[in-house]
Amino acid sequence: MSKLTDVPKRILIGRALRSDRLGETLLPKRVALPVFASDPLSSVAYAPGEVLLVLSIAGLSAYHFSPWIAAAVVVLMFTVVASYRQNVHAYPSGGGDYEVATTNLGPKAGLTVASALLVDYVLTVAVSISSGIENLGSAIPFVVENKVACAVGVIVLLTLMNLRGVRESGTLFAIPTYVFVAGVFLMIAWGAFRGVVLGDDMRAPTADFEIKPEHPGLAGFALVFLLLRAFSSGCAALTGVEAISNGVPAFRKPKSRNAATTLAMMGLLAVTMFCGIIGLAMATDVRMAENPAKDLIHDGVPLGPDYVQHPVISQVAEAVFGQGSLLFIVLAAATALVLFLAANTAYNGFPLLGSILAQDRYLPRQLHTRGDRLAFSNGIVLLAGAAGLLVWVYGADSTRLIQLYIVGVFVSFTLSQTGMVRHWNRLLATESDQAKRRHMIRSRAINAFGAFFTGLVLVVVLLTKFTHGAWVALLGMCIFYATMTAIRRHYDRVAEEIAAPETPSEDTARPSRVHSVVLVSKVHRPALRALAYAKLLRSDTLEALSVNVDAEETRALREEWERRGIAVPLKVLDSPYREVTRPVIEYVKSLRAQSPRDVVSVIIPEYVVGHWYEHLLHNQSALRLKGRLLFTPGVMVTSVPYQLESSEAAKLRARKRQDWAAPGSVRRGPAERAKDSSPHT
Amino acid sequence: MSKLTDVPKRILIGRALRSDRLGETLLPKRVALPVFASDPLSSVAYAPGEVLLVLSIAGLSAYHFSPWIAAAVVVLMFTVVASYRQNVHAYPSGGGDYEVATTNLGPKAGLTVASALLVDYVLTVAVSISSGIENLGSAIPFVVENKVACAVGVIVLLTLMNLRGVRESGTLFAIPTYVFVAGVFLMIAWGAFRGVVLGDDMRAPTADFEIKPEHPGLAGFALVFLLLRAFSSGCAALTGVEAISNGVPAFRKPKSRNAATTLAMMGLLAVTMFCGIIGLAMATDVRMAENPAKDLIHDGVPLGPDYVQHPVISQVAEAVFGQGSLLFIVLAAATALVLFLAANTAYNGFPLLGSILAQDRYLPRQLHTRGDRLAFSNGIVLLAGAAGLLVWVYGADSTRLIQLYIVGVFVSFTLSQTGMVRHWNRLLATESDQAKRRHMIRSRAINAFGAFFTGLVLVVVLLTKFTHGAWVALLGMCIFYATMTAIRRHYDRVAEEIAAPETPSEDTARPSRVHSVVLVSKVHRPALRALAYAKLLRSDTLEALSVNVDAEETRALREEWERRGIAVPLKVLDSPYREVTRPVIEYVKSLRAQSPRDVVSVIIPEYVVGHWYEHLLHNQSALRLKGRLLFTPGVMVTSVPYQLESSEAAKLRARKRQDWAAPGSVRRGPAERAKDSSPHT
Repeated sequence: MSKLTDVPKRILIGRALRSDRLGETLLPKRVALPVFASDPLSSVAYAPGEVLLVLSIAGLSAYHFSPWIAAAVVVLMFTVVASYRQNVHAYPSGGGDYEVATTNLGPKAGLTVASALLVDYVLTVAVSISSGIENLGSAIPFVVENKVACAVGVIVLLTLMNLRGVRESGTLFAIPTYVFVAGVFLMIAWGAFRGVVLGDDMRAPTADFEIKPEHPGLAGFALVFLLLRAFSSGCAALTGVEAISNGVPAFRKPKSRNAATTLAMMGLLAVTMFCGIIGLAMATDVRMAENPAKDLIHDGVPLGPDYVQHPVISQVAEAVFGQGSLLFIVLAAATALVLFLAANTAYNGFPLLGSILAQDRYLPRQLHTRGDRLAFSNGIVLLAGAAGLLVWVYGADSTRLIQLYIVGVFVSFTLSQTGMVRHWNRLLATESDQAKRRHMIRSRAINAFGAFFTGLVLVVVLLTKFTHGAWVALLGMCIFYATMTAIRRHYDRVAEEIAAPETPSEDTARPSRVHSVVLVSKVHRPALRALAYAKLLRSDTLEALSVNVDAEETRALREEWERRGIAVPLKVLDSPYREVTRPVIEYVKSLRAQSPRDVVSVIIPEYVVGHWYEHLLHNQSALRLKGRLLFTPGVMVTSVPYQLESSEAAKLRARKRQDWAAPGSVRRGPAERAKDSSPHT
Repeated sequence: MSKLTDVPKRILIGRALRSDRLGETLLPKRVALPVFASDPLSSVAYAPGEVLLVLSIAGLSAYHFSPWIAAAVVVLMFTVVASYRQNVHAYPSGGGDYEVATTNLGPKAGLTVASALLVDYVLTVAVSISSGIENLGSAIPFVVENKVACAVGVIVLLTLMNLRGVRESGTLFAIPTYVFVAGVFLMIAWGAFRGVVLGDDMRAPTADFEIKPEHPGLAGFALVFLLLRAFSSGCAALTGVEAISNGVPAFRKPKSRNAATTLAMMGLLAVTMFCGIIGLAMATDVRMAENPAKDLIHDGVPLGPDYVQHPVISQVAEAVFGQGSLLFIVLAAATALVLFLAANTAYNGFPLLGSILAQDRYLPRQLHTRGDRLAFSNGIVLLAGAAGLLVWVYGADSTRLIQLYIVGVFVSFTLSQTGMVRHWNRLLATESDQAKRRHMIRSRAINAFGAFFTGLVLVVVLLTKFTHGAWVALLGMCIFYATMTAIRRHYDRVAEEIAAPETPSEDTARPSRVHSVVLVSKVHRPALRALAYAKLLRSDTLEALSVNVDAEETRALREEWERRGIAVPLKVLDSPYREVTRPVIEYVKSLRAQSPRDVVSVIIPEYVVGHWYEHLLHNQSALRLKGRLLFTPGVMVTSVPYQLESSEAAKLRARKRQDWAAPGSVRRGPAERAKDSSPHT
């Protein structure tokens, strides 16, 4: 089966590159930062714009609120970072929010967090790639004119890369991330220098436009609601902050401290960039609207549907560096690249979370196996398919996609922080060392504030965004939750059914005898080999069995049998309708009926071929027979393979497939380590 | 695998109806006629129209040639019927043209015939259904306005019926066929009575139209070519004549004589109807054109694209019975029904021919099994897919589809008749009884004339229709031929590779010892059962093997093993990357490396579940491991199934699936009989 489904993949993806065994190398902070922080850092490329966009609904005057909203986002960011620094110290195993919630709040909370995170991985891909395309489009118009096609193209590219097993390398992440961070800081510094010292009047390309407010003169509760909605959109800057808490095992020692430091650095970089971009946007009079076609006015005329609204960061860069300047283009390229890396993060995180969930039997157990390429591939294809669908449905419009985002993040923030409060409560109940107690109480206070604040934001996000698209994300969470619950229930039921009884019962009691039956159709090498192996097993009786589907062939078989003097008796079953399966099944059943305590061992010679199409030409009857025999109690089914020459090809393929690096292996750290510290039993 | 692909089918098709075992009933002539002759009889519904259509290219005056063309078709029909009466006597086994050509002209000729017949089955479906829709459309305009959709709908319906295994019943065929024949004869008689006795002036609905000839004043060679083309189209009336020669085993005794009589009756009915319809069309001034939209003129104006050209038979019926009269509607319905039955004939014939080809190893061997539902299903779906594609591409236009038709039929006619000549030559070489010799010489003369005449027609068809679409049919034949040759070559190569040597060689020599290895992950019922069975087999060594993918679980397994005092030693393999397959394969290889003459028996406990989705949750690692183990030499792989409760559902399903009647079983006759007389060895 696996071979059949592999073929189309192999055609597209080619053979995996041979890569060195996943590094025993652990990540230093300077590499860990870009690996884990590309997602939160890159979100400053779209979060500031979303704030302005929402504010524009109340007209240009509402832009004055943007510093306050930025301040709120900064406070939230510090809260979340401070909270997760506690997580990192308390749970160095890398289980992340799922582990924290499960351990402290129970499996239902854990599963809720997992569902939320799975949905958010999908959205990370959709939002990051759409936004990356928009940023790239500010330098290359063609890209933004064919938004959906380009976005889907990038998804396909990332998918193929990850299926092929390109190893996540620190360098790959480090260069664009540092270029991006340096570019943004340079832009902020140069912008401040030009504005304050040189007194230049920097003007964004949209500075001359007017905004036609959709709801002019908004006030009172409606205004508050709008501000809350703008704040919700700004919270997009916080997505991906939890990534570091999943990656603690990959850090150099002291792991927890290094992770906490990296987290702090990341938070500091993110808020500085976020505020800097908002500040520059205000200084250069950037104008953005939710519906730029009709709400942006130039010389009294709406801009119309052909107008492309560029992201804030690129408008600001144009104002500061000058249109078409080298720095502008470098920054646009670095921004797009960082956003694509952020999407790639989800490609690593999704199957990783899947393998943890599989360990807890919420997903098919096969996903648990770390190096299992097929399992990872299924996860990657599922992620890419869902993200591609969203991109297609929402026209690769990051603004519309962001409405779905964030819900999941804040569900997991809130539950994780609540779990941490419980964690400290539990520890405090037994701890008597006063210094440690003080430390714990402090941590608990931080986590409690974090839980309260993120919970509040979650409510705000749900209230302000539910009808704008958040319901889609919630629906996705419910589907994941229900599926995983059903899978777990199935495994539990099976586990109960197969639990070994303490006293030997009927079906574990030692049966008395074995009747071996070797299926033969002709006297050829595979049959002779099967007979030779069957004889070795010294069962109580041994006979060869053939089904008479063709009188001529059966006669030839009988003659050859006698001529060679094969010592095993040959039994021929009649089959008036040229069937193979039914007569064999009935014969096996009749053997069992004669002596119910005995076991029948059916031995089938099997051809091993190298190509899927050869598979269609061989073994089909054997395969079906095996399938049916398995339903017959008291039977064991043995395949004696005969490797045809063409099977060499398949063997070679399988060997190459083994040398494959699973996505996300770098961020998980070496395997033994992750296993030892795993709390899942 | 089979289960997975079955699911969508099952949803659409439902469970097969339980039908009685295929009748030990043989067919009397009055039932055999409609069963086997619906295809050739129904072709009189479109063949006469095609003749007029082609003639119209040279203008109305060319219509005068139609009686001559009808006469040529009649002579050809008598020739073919007379020839096949010889086949029926000489080859009563029902192998048909394929058998005759293979036996007498060698396998390449046989394969050519088979390819031609396979293509023609596809075209029978496409042409008959398109024509049926057109006939139905003369009574129900909606149908012809949505031609392609309706035609595809009928194909889907027939496909579902045949997949479901509706048994071909004589009555089902008899009623519409006899109604159709009676209706046509009544129409001819009533038309003749009205015209000759009453002197009525019957006028077809198109009688007032004029024809604008595409090539006016055609003469000389061009005219001859056109007449030959018209004759080629008229030959469509001969398709399906060979069906009876495939069905001899289904006749009552004396089989051959009854089949020959039925063949003669069929020929007589067909030519009478064909000539009668042409005659009535001339008498009622039917006007048909290849491009009715621009070449049919009414009051000096072309009819335009909205004009629907109804089939000749319905125009004649309208003239004779009156528009909208009951008899007109009954005849239209019976015509459509007979045409659909003709299409159904191909649904029975295609998998039947496939099973004969599979017996000769030109197709996957599984198709050979008579009662194999899955194999039949694949054939039916392939047929329906190809026919559906043709209908869609050619807009369900029977006129355009007929251009592709006939090539295949005449390829098989010609080769079969040539083969018969050889057959008589061979017999004559040894026969000395003068009476018998005379008889044989007479038969040989008939077949020789048949071969000559059908060969001539084949050349004419190829010349006149190649560019009109016959190349598509030839291409189809080449594809079938190449595929089947490749399959046969593969089987031959494998047969050579696995042929048992006369002296025991390395790989058939008796190996010395067996090491049994039972894979366990936990101490549960399936594992205990596998251990118990393994012990019974008394191999030389026996150990339990586990892979350490989770330190915690492995510890639990070890403890439980000791606590229960299981007598089999437990070996645990380390797996730093949480893989299962690789460590096991490497361990097995190391066992083999220590003692190359020994055999390793790997015993795997396997869960048996009832639903395909449960399959995804279990056995995946085991399945993959088994797949890999088969490539390792010196290994036998044993599954010890443990039937979970849910497996009952699957068992029930499988049992129901067995009581399924394969399409075409009636026309094949009882199985034993077909087998005994089979010359394939």
